[in-house]
Amino acid sequence: MIITLPDGSQRTYPQGTTAHQIALSISEGLARNVLAAEVNNEVWDAHRPIETDAHVKLLTWNDPAGKSTFWHSSAHLMAEALEALYPGTKFGIGPAIETGFYYDVDFGDREFSSDNFKEIEQKMLELAKRKEVFVRESVSKSDAIAYFQEKGDEYKLDLLEGLEDGQITFYKQGEFTDLCRGPHIPDTSFIKAVKLMNVAGAYWRGDETKKQLTRIYGVTFSKQSELTAYLLMIEEAKKRDHRKLGKELELFAFSEKVGMGLPLWLPKGAALRERLVQFLTKAQAKAGYEQVVTPHIGNKNLYITSGHYEKYGKDAFQPIRTPQEGEEFFLKPMNCPHHCEIYKVKPRSYKDLPLRFAEFGTVYRYEQSGELHGLTRVRGFTQDDAHLFCRPDQVKDEFKKVIDLVLYVFKTLGFEDYIAQISLRDPENKNKYLGSEENWKIAEQAIIEAAEEKGLKTVIELGEAAFYGPKLDFMVRDAIGRKWQLGTIQVDYNLPIRFELEYTGSDNQKHVPVMIHRAPFGSLERFIAVLIEHCAGNFPLWLSPEQFIILPISEKYEEYAKKVSEELNISDIRGLIDGRDEKIGRKIRDAEVKKVPYMLIIGEKEMEEGKVSVRKHGEGDLGTMTVSEFSELMIKEITV
Amino acid sequence: MIITLPDGSQRTYPQGTTAHQIALSISEGLARNVLAAEVNNEVWDAHRPIETDAHVKLLTWNDPAGKSTFWHSSAHLMAEALEALYPGTKFGIGPAIETGFYYDVDFGDREFSSDNFKEIEQKMLELAKRKEVFVRESVSKSDAIAYFQEKGDEYKLDLLEGLEDGQITFYKQGEFTDLCRGPHIPDTSFIKAVKLMNVAGAYWRGDETKKQLTRIYGVTFSKQSELTAYLLMIEEAKKRDHRKLGKELELFAFSEKVGMGLPLWLPKGAALRERLVQFLTKAQAKAGYEQVVTPHIGNKNLYITSGHYEKYGKDAFQPIRTPQEGEEFFLKPMNCPHHCEIYKVKPRSYKDLPLRFAEFGTVYRYEQSGELHGLTRVRGFTQDDAHLFCRPDQVKDEFKKVIDLVLYVFKTLGFEDYIAQISLRDPENKNKYLGSEENWKIAEQAIIEAAEEKGLKTVIELGEAAFYGPKLDFMVRDAIGRKWQLGTIQVDYNLPIRFELEYTGSDNQKHVPVMIHRAPFGSLERFIAVLIEHCAGNFPLWLSPEQFIILPISEKYEEYAKKVSEELNISDIRGLIDGRDEKIGRKIRDAEVKKVPYMLIIGEKEMEEGKVSVRKHGEGDLGTMTVSEFSELMIKEITV
Repeated sequence: MIITLPDGSQRTYPQGTTAHQIALSISEGLARNVLAAEVNNEVWDAHRPIETDAHVKLLTWNDPAGKSTFWHSSAHLMAEALEALYPGTKFGIGPAIETGFYYDVDFGDREFSSDNFKEIEQKMLELAKRKEVFVRESVSKSDAIAYFQEKGDEYKLDLLEGLEDGQITFYKQGEFTDLCRGPHIPDTSFIKAVKLMNVAGAYWRGDETKKQLTRIYGVTFSKQSELTAYLLMIEEAKKRDHRKLGKELELFAFSEKVGMGLPLWLPKGAALRERLVQFLTKAQAKAGYEQVVTPHIGNKNLYITSGHYEKYGKDAFQPIRTPQEGEEFFLKPMNCPHHCEIYKVKPRSYKDLPLRFAEFGTVYRYEQSGELHGLTRVRGFTQDDAHLFCRPDQVKDEFKKVIDLVLYVFKTLGFEDYIAQISLRDPENKNKYLGSEENWKIAEQAIIEAAEEKGLKTVIELGEAAFYGPKLDFMVRDAIGRKWQLGTIQVDYNLPIRFELEYTGSDNQKHVPVMIHRAPFGSLERFIAVLIEHCAGNFPLWLSPEQFIILPISEKYEEYAKKVSEELNISDIRGLIDGRDEKIGRKIRDAEVKKVPYMLIIGEKEMEEGKVSVRKHGEGDLGTMTVSEFSELMIKEITV
Repeated sequence: MIITLPDGSQRTYPQGTTAHQIALSISEGLARNVLAAEVNNEVWDAHRPIETDAHVKLLTWNDPAGKSTFWHSSAHLMAEALEALYPGTKFGIGPAIETGFYYDVDFGDREFSSDNFKEIEQKMLELAKRKEVFVRESVSKSDAIAYFQEKGDEYKLDLLEGLEDGQITFYKQGEFTDLCRGPHIPDTSFIKAVKLMNVAGAYWRGDETKKQLTRIYGVTFSKQSELTAYLLMIEEAKKRDHRKLGKELELFAFSEKVGMGLPLWLPKGAALRERLVQFLTKAQAKAGYEQVVTPHIGNKNLYITSGHYEKYGKDAFQPIRTPQEGEEFFLKPMNCPHHCEIYKVKPRSYKDLPLRFAEFGTVYRYEQSGELHGLTRVRGFTQDDAHLFCRPDQVKDEFKKVIDLVLYVFKTLGFEDYIAQISLRDPENKNKYLGSEENWKIAEQAIIEAAEEKGLKTVIELGEAAFYGPKLDFMVRDAIGRKWQLGTIQVDYNLPIRFELEYTGSDNQKHVPVMIHRAPFGSLERFIAVLIEHCAGNFPLWLSPEQFIILPISEKYEEYAKKVSEELNISDIRGLIDGRDEKIGRKIRDAEVKKVPYMLIIGEKEMEEGKVSVRKHGEGDLGTMTVSEFSELMIKEITV
């Protein structure tokens, strides 16, 4: 049989060869790392025999599906440990999740808490060392029912009710057998590091009327060092949580009366936000963008034209009506329809293009209250939006310019680790996309070439394009290794048609412009959340809401403090005076918590000499200097 | 009987003395100008005998009620002329309006158009000269009905149906008798200048199922010179109409799809807007304001707390619901409730006050579509809002600072003619106001003193305060003499109580802060409309969306044009190149229409010499100069 690998190369193997054997035929090292395999787009056990010609992708830890298989197997391992330690435990479901796995179990009358974690972890490691193979077995429905009836596990019996005979498989490792579709890793010895994270209650099938089971969350790795790194990252992430820092640094708040998911930007947060806005506005003005301002609501007809009403009408905030005239408006969920109407304000010629309309446009999208999360999942947010209207022959150049802008943003804000993910059409299924074959070819080629010419690391995802055009997303890794999607650039062939946009070409004929959506930050809210966590609240000096704080040792020095503050304000350096009647030690501690970059301590000596004692956040004493020396230091750091 | 005049002075007159006689007893000149009189808060004919002690205010042209009486009498004069010229004409209603009057009449089968205006005006002047006295006469309902039945005027009969016997009066001047409550000016000779403005159709009683009458609009004055000035002003106002200039200068547009009354700010308008925002932000930062940012919607509970729901709920945009959770939100009609919630984010001490939260907050208020008008009456607008939270003893100082800020705005933007209107409690009716007697006294005194100390021209309006606090409004006269209310400063004792705001005083007790609302512009939309009309689109150079435009004589000079443009951009001078393939004369004309302050003409000679030919809008040629000379000229004008 012929096996086609992801790079397109083909190899011939005897029927019944497994993915593991294929890996072995390439290299032993590879084989050691293969956790599972994608066989004709389905994830299989690495040891399951392949019987026909197939496309095969070997899955390792670096593939999301490989990792997920690893954690699913770890859930089985935990179940095996639980059964060994606490006989009679009954099992619900035990899936892999984004980071790790859980199992919902019924301990009967047995007491259980996180105090039990240690013995379970030890038992899991002990079982893992036994190199127990995960064995797949097809069973008839009646045999499966008989097995779990004998075992007395009503949850598995409940699950079995919904399954069809002939489709049922068991997986067994060591003494533990589970009803499971699979796939699994080859054996338990792959699992070398184990950590149970959390225990919570969970109703069977998520139904409040049913029994509450115990959900145990865990995570596993193939190396102890990876677990250590992961736990460090978790701890660090907690410290950096933007919700926690947002409160401590007084950046934003939420009010139940105003409404959940609707951030109130406090003075310091609003200042930070405004500085980001000004930074990008300036860069965009240089790049030929024009700012526009549009309302936050739009008539229903606008969204019927754009197609958003049909697609999202029911899931969005419900319409606003005028009391006497009964017109229907919607909170705008995006700015593009408004910008299309601005394009239409006057006739456009090929010479006018590209047009680049930018707006820091606040949009509103309904999210279920349970889904809301700090600034990353909100009901109202401000996009650093722009829509470029260009000719097809300008797409590549515009893409390159947008890439430049995004990279400038990343560089200025300290994001250094990113790749560009290019989403193209599914080549097997071209008719589900809108726009001509020719334009798609031009645009896809333009994006790929633009990314290449800009020297970006890229991954290409076939079939991930939207129906209305291909796109490029930046996947950015933050300071503690988490990935965030920032800076989307999206071609759109749909809206220009729906809004009947046109320009007069050099041929004097009407043509439809190409539209490009782009947002380097994505939204101010989400970006600021990511930024807070990336820099742990220690913003670059130019962004800091307060760049310095003056700490007079006593009231006696308040006059001098004011003089210093005014002198610095003249050089556009921002800061405050801590005039509270507190000990200097307390003032310093509070300033450290507020992460103010520079503390200026003022006492008798400083006042007499006309100097300030400078202390840098996280670094400590920099000695005394004159105000102008300090101001120079600041300006140097800001302009770096 | 005793007559009390507005200044509080009292005079004794025999019973039956008229207002006209009272005026005569003061001065003959005054008597000549008295059009009517307010007798115990009711407007009366100047010749109507007064029978009891009364408060009397003599009304002249400078009193709105005097003017209104003048125009109401002019409507009667027009009716008299119409009856004389076109016998058989039937009359509907003929009220005074903001500028002039109209009468709805039924000409039967007679053709009527503005061509008839001239003869009517002449007849009116002829009748006016006859010094026909307006005679008031009480009639019984049956006599009134008999009169109009004989005359055959079904409209007056229709009006009579709704009136009560004993309350009916006729007014008669010359040959014309009208059913009318009055009052009227003494006689027709006061009317010396007449102009009919417009003719339109109007359904009887505004009911589409009833007959359409002919509505004739007119305006009259007591001097020909006043009419001439008025007509000039009208013509000038048309040229300056912000809706016309907004389109020509490409500042803003409306789209039916987005919705009526919801302006789309085009790049040039958005740039102008942003410049105003930055200008005020900078001034506010200096004055100790802190910017905040809040969402454009708020939960219903927020408006129940603020009281807005109860008061405006039914007239506002109707609530937005979340699709699954059924929560109700409203588009925010004002920013104050959100700012109260920001105040509540943390405990405040007397030392923290005053706090000044500023936001360019876009609010939405439902207006009937028929009421919408350009940028002055919209459904969505951005307030240059701020809320000051202070102690009662800080009110005066805060008022003075706000006055400084407002005057700085007026001065910078060329508004030189204004008075401050101070609205206080009705001293006769103090219990209808919220807040303690003491606080009202403090605040009213503070406002009066603040205005005085700032040297403002003021008028005091008793009883014009809102129920929640006194206020100061600036009444500004624009370049063509029209008055606009700008820059309100309003004390509020209500919201701090409703939101349970508090601060810890120096006595360690909880106190309620005073809240001050203020908006120097009012809203960006309305202010920009006023500004456009005030300066006829010729914005101060620092505000101009485009400060210069480069006009190359042909394509040959485009390279040099770009070089000049870049050089100017470096000095932060904004402008464009008109690279169209058009004759230079056409380019200059177009630039004049767009009111670009400076035109830089570039041809062979300029390029060779490294210079530009400068032309100033509305002034003409300034000769050739180097780019740096031009740039200096600009910077000098900007920083003046």
